[in-house]
Amino acid sequence: MPTSLSSLDYFRDSYEVRLAQLNEKRRKGTKIVGTFCLFVPDEIIFAAGADRIVLCGGRTDTIHLAEQYLPRNICPLIKSSFGAIVDACCGGNLSCPHIQLVDVVVAEATCDGKKKMYEILPEYVPTYVLDLPQKPESSEAIDYFLAELRKFGGFMEKLTGNVLTDEVLKREIQSSNETRKLLRRLFDLRKLDPPPILGSEILSVMQKQFFLAPDQFRQGISRLCEELENVIPEPRSGRRIMISGCPMAAGNTKMSDIIEQKGGVTVVEESCTGTRSFWDLVDENRNPWDALAERYLEIPCACMTPNDRRVARIVDLAKQYNVDGVVYYTLQFCHAYNIERLRVQQALKKEKIPMLAIESDYGDSDIEQIGVRIDAFLEMIS
Amino acid sequence: MPTSLSSLDYFRDSYEVRLAQLNEKRRKGTKIVGTFCLFVPDEIIFAAGADRIVLCGGRTDTIHLAEQYLPRNICPLIKSSFGAIVDACCGGNLSCPHIQLVDVVVAEATCDGKKKMYEILPEYVPTYVLDLPQKPESSEAIDYFLAELRKFGGFMEKLTGNVLTDEVLKREIQSSNETRKLLRRLFDLRKLDPPPILGSEILSVMQKQFFLAPDQFRQGISRLCEELENVIPEPRSGRRIMISGCPMAAGNTKMSDIIEQKGGVTVVEESCTGTRSFWDLVDENRNPWDALAERYLEIPCACMTPNDRRVARIVDLAKQYNVDGVVYYTLQFCHAYNIERLRVQQALKKEKIPMLAIESDYGDSDIEQIGVRIDAFLEMIS
Repeated sequence: MPTSLSSLDYFRDSYEVRLAQLNEKRRKGTKIVGTFCLFVPDEIIFAAGADRIVLCGGRTDTIHLAEQYLPRNICPLIKSSFGAIVDACCGGNLSCPHIQLVDVVVAEATCDGKKKMYEILPEYVPTYVLDLPQKPESSEAIDYFLAELRKFGGFMEKLTGNVLTDEVLKREIQSSNETRKLLRRLFDLRKLDPPPILGSEILSVMQKQFFLAPDQFRQGISRLCEELENVIPEPRSGRRIMISGCPMAAGNTKMSDIIEQKGGVTVVEESCTGTRSFWDLVDENRNPWDALAERYLEIPCACMTPNDRRVARIVDLAKQYNVDGVVYYTLQFCHAYNIERLRVQQALKKEKIPMLAIESDYGDSDIEQIGVRIDAFLEMIS
Repeated sequence: MPTSLSSLDYFRDSYEVRLAQLNEKRRKGTKIVGTFCLFVPDEIIFAAGADRIVLCGGRTDTIHLAEQYLPRNICPLIKSSFGAIVDACCGGNLSCPHIQLVDVVVAEATCDGKKKMYEILPEYVPTYVLDLPQKPESSEAIDYFLAELRKFGGFMEKLTGNVLTDEVLKREIQSSNETRKLLRRLFDLRKLDPPPILGSEILSVMQKQFFLAPDQFRQGISRLCEELENVIPEPRSGRRIMISGCPMAAGNTKMSDIIEQKGGVTVVEESCTGTRSFWDLVDENRNPWDALAERYLEIPCACMTPNDRRVARIVDLAKQYNVDGVVYYTLQFCHAYNIERLRVQQALKKEKIPMLAIESDYGDSDIEQIGVRIDAFLEMIS
């Protein structure tokens, strides 16, 4: 049962506001960068005077287009995103209008599927790929990533014609940290029992983080926090659930929706569209490039190996948010998150925290099935 | 119809000989390293005084074991390999006896599936993982890989108690280059029309490269070359086929077998169990570490991005070997090779070289189906 929080209206109306802003900025010469992943630091894009929107697709209706080029058995996020770009570049009307505003895609070598999809993108949109070391714990890995970030900075300078100074970069780091702190404040409110807001509502808000301008997004989050800090929560007896796993891109709220329709309540998402996006701050007291390289390489994505940081984070979040159970969510054919499930399950079992693993795509055909499994899980943990 | 080359008997008998050798070496204190990939330089292992065997599984009978830990929808090579190790470590009798001889696995961050499987391996066998940059073209990438190789060298020194000198490393580079040149000589013979040997016979020999000791392997290849240089080939009217794509590990000759049962003849494999293993030499006139880093990072595996080198190599091989068509072979759920198919197809189309894409696992259930498609392809290109 959705709450009626008036501050959520702000987000509902924000798409059109932002679209107008992007159009206006572009008309005035600002470059618009499209990204697909948290590993590409926003700070560098903004410090170079460009704007950015994240292009990860959560909708099912562009997938059939992608399947003309890509194998069917890869993850729906990749197919949805690629299909949206193909559609936008071929004058279709399936994809959201903001996709046509992108001057360049800045991609990253995270998973096999995205990495190889990016090789086909240049036929549709200029594409720059940032390499990532995959073993993040060594000083050599940080050095390599630092070099990649500096090269990326150089690319942004060329693209925009602006000079990317350390001073502006520091200001952007502060700005991004401000967003991160606000999101912590928002997520802290979900620790209340019962939580004052549904997980599906939070997810829709979090998805906006990747499209709105930072100040526009922060304004909405501030209002939401203020309202939540003063709201008297509706009594809810739902089991407290953490969703952990793959990103849930705009258009995809399937898992949260099912959990909450079945009477659970999602209190935290260990996800790119959840804690992974804001949990760790960038150190403001260091050289900004070094600080960015270290912080970003610590993002506990399953593309990293070993990924003990993520396993520990999940257990920690489960405790902090006092969850009754974890739904481990994998997008179909996402090998990294899918295989990492075993280690997460082992760690949660040690802590006696129940876990249910669900692998799904963006289609509707398994909603009933998943619902039955969620029902059984909620009953088991109640 | 298989030829009757007496030099092939050498390889048929070689398993037992090598197994006895490994047992004897181990008894005397030599460390046995298990690897899974061409990106781990043999030269470093041998120079440190250790021996190595490649553990990639091509058999179907250990897969059910792996599926107790790993998702079903990942590639059969990963499941087969992991299952064999689990079996060996749990006292089973499914896997080959050499697996129990491995002191340590040296793995690499190539694809998502293997990378994440390696995180579970330490429960069964000590495991060391070599990181790989994924964009091989930059000097920073080479520097990073060089640092990884040097660290790996240090690890090998600790493991064996030997000092890994540049001198010994150079000797091992020469030795490996010798093997590579011999394999070139062997593959050059396949350029004859008709070729003097079947592709399925060559594949079985190539699979032995990853198990036998280098001198033992070279002896067999020398004999084979000598015999082939003097043999009068049986007249064959089969279409000349290149198999391009995923490795075909020992136990898996499915694709070659089907092609040749249908009357085609495989004249070259663009594969880890084909040209990728030997095509490029290591420069013997440079610092051995630098030379290794550069040569190995140039292996045109689909895990690299962009992978223009592979696309160009395929077109080049198709011409050099005068092929009538290419069978693009992907192991099921191997995203990297599967997605790269599009770019390969585009490049071959430009050259008017026909291509058939086949995705398969190690099971028998699709042999009929694949046969029908191969039949149609051979007819189309004749």
